[in-house]
Amino acid sequence: MINIKPISGTRNRLQLIDQTRLPVEELIVNLTQLEEVADAIKRLVVRGAPAIGIAAAYGLSLHIESASSVKNLKEKFDKAFDVLAATRPTAVNLFWALNRMQTKLDDILSQDKDLEAIKVSLFNEAESIEREDYAMCRKIGEYGIEVFKGKSNFKAMTICNAGGLATAGYGTALACFYMAKEKGMEPEVFALETRPLLQGSRLTAYELLKAGIKTTLLSDNMSASLMREKQIDCIITGADRIAKNGDAANKIGTYQLAILAKAHDIPFYVAAPATTFDFKLEKGEDIPIEFRGKDELIHFGERQTAPSEVEVYAPAFDVTPAQLISGIITNQGLFRPPYHFDETILQQ
Amino acid sequence: MINIKPISGTRNRLQLIDQTRLPVEELIVNLTQLEEVADAIKRLVVRGAPAIGIAAAYGLSLHIESASSVKNLKEKFDKAFDVLAATRPTAVNLFWALNRMQTKLDDILSQDKDLEAIKVSLFNEAESIEREDYAMCRKIGEYGIEVFKGKSNFKAMTICNAGGLATAGYGTALACFYMAKEKGMEPEVFALETRPLLQGSRLTAYELLKAGIKTTLLSDNMSASLMREKQIDCIITGADRIAKNGDAANKIGTYQLAILAKAHDIPFYVAAPATTFDFKLEKGEDIPIEFRGKDELIHFGERQTAPSEVEVYAPAFDVTPAQLISGIITNQGLFRPPYHFDETILQQ
Repeated sequence: MINIKPISGTRNRLQLIDQTRLPVEELIVNLTQLEEVADAIKRLVVRGAPAIGIAAAYGLSLHIESASSVKNLKEKFDKAFDVLAATRPTAVNLFWALNRMQTKLDDILSQDKDLEAIKVSLFNEAESIEREDYAMCRKIGEYGIEVFKGKSNFKAMTICNAGGLATAGYGTALACFYMAKEKGMEPEVFALETRPLLQGSRLTAYELLKAGIKTTLLSDNMSASLMREKQIDCIITGADRIAKNGDAANKIGTYQLAILAKAHDIPFYVAAPATTFDFKLEKGEDIPIEFRGKDELIHFGERQTAPSEVEVYAPAFDVTPAQLISGIITNQGLFRPPYHFDETILQQ
Repeated sequence: MINIKPISGTRNRLQLIDQTRLPVEELIVNLTQLEEVADAIKRLVVRGAPAIGIAAAYGLSLHIESASSVKNLKEKFDKAFDVLAATRPTAVNLFWALNRMQTKLDDILSQDKDLEAIKVSLFNEAESIEREDYAMCRKIGEYGIEVFKGKSNFKAMTICNAGGLATAGYGTALACFYMAKEKGMEPEVFALETRPLLQGSRLTAYELLKAGIKTTLLSDNMSASLMREKQIDCIITGADRIAKNGDAANKIGTYQLAILAKAHDIPFYVAAPATTFDFKLEKGEDIPIEFRGKDELIHFGERQTAPSEVEVYAPAFDVTPAQLISGIITNQGLFRPPYHFDETILQQ
């Protein structure tokens, strides 16, 4: 079993691995106040859409724990909801988790339970969100290892951090490697550093090594050279949003990795929970892409490394067309082209 | 005319733009001693193969200037030759320039000239090396603009710094953009930051902006996204060594840029002096590739950003196969495939 646990909650305390300190320092922070939880989400102490949702659910539970009456609990809940919702306004899983807690509260209030029962029930709901996320990631891993079938060891590449640190602890793309390791295979993973924020260096290399997986770091411009020089068996990346036709948005650099994979005849997979599909979107062009500011590209650590007056082109994500994707690995199965996804995938 | 001049020499002083301070600070250092010149080359105050050769030639001239007799001059010359040759042992142009100065000395000694005449002659030789390099770069620019024919403005991409700062002042790949600008076209250049040493951010963006060329910076993983989103007319990179069949070694990331260019139907050119061809090598596989150490990838500025125990894959160069190269731009002409180069190119 993989022993990374970025989040753990009790009724009185939320523990987080401070991801801003990784990989050099493994600092566990203990949070007891709503404001501390909100601040931790804002400062990226915890990051990754599923992980943010889990932390927020525990944050809600933490804040209502001191309620002196049901009325007071409802007030505290509303306040915590608003404070947490304002932390990372574009993180879809954050709202999903907060709304799920709200539904639970409404449900339990309708049952006329006592104060303690409501508190327990909300804490249990936060725990369920965490536990279900972990189970879902393991499912992705189980379906994912189909792509390594028949291999006792293999070489894979990945970009960014679609790992345990972004979820309850098992990851999405990285779940495939963890599950392979659990099943006795010997994965070797090549992690792209992933400019500008270096999630590959800071987080993916860290958690893969912690899990005992042989890990090699390279910068993003070394991808094709690696593909030509080493026998890479496959590439697996995460996804932030997937359209009905299978076009997948993910961290910038994923699209070019898929082109390079095709040029070198290497299968390219995307791994993500079924909830990543956006059934309102027919195709990838409809996915909005966030652009980042200048600072991340013109500074290197503390030092300015490019002229202040230079323009920058800095999309945070790109869209990989479905025809470059050999398969989409979800907690509901491994899907091969031609793709056409609809809501039924969520009920499988 | 482009007004960047990384190196200027007189008989008593060598002036260099300190490239380690760019782009934030434009510091001109004045060197009067051999040891200062050697140190400047070692510390990358001046870098780029042609620029190193020019600086070393001036360094030799500087050191013999104080000679008190012909015998003393020969001793000083030998010492300076050895000190300078030891600065960057793999830079081919360094040895080429030192040997050219040696040939000049041998020649002038055989003519029985007086001490002052020998000093003048060696200084003139250093000046010639610089002047010829500049003229050669302008020739590359003149042949290079053929690829923009019929366009009043265009968008191009480049990687690393094949620019004025690496030469006597006009560059190789960047010479094409400078010449286009001189001829009244409006180039817009997208510079890849070029990990791990960021020559694109620090040097290329700096010198293009200084020349009044619109410049946009992107990280290496944003290349394909840019190619898809913007109408890129062509890519031009430098080369460190070119085999007889046209396979070209250049900064790591060039090979994948060529694959991505092909996938987006964008012409991909290499620009380099004819002296870059290595006629001993039939094909690119024969070109030795330098690998870099761990430090450049696991640190970001002062900060450690990847676990110490991670492996790294860090080639400094890669080889782009000739079939991905739309044309090779040299000071002897623009060559199109099929390529077969031999020594006659040097005599054209």
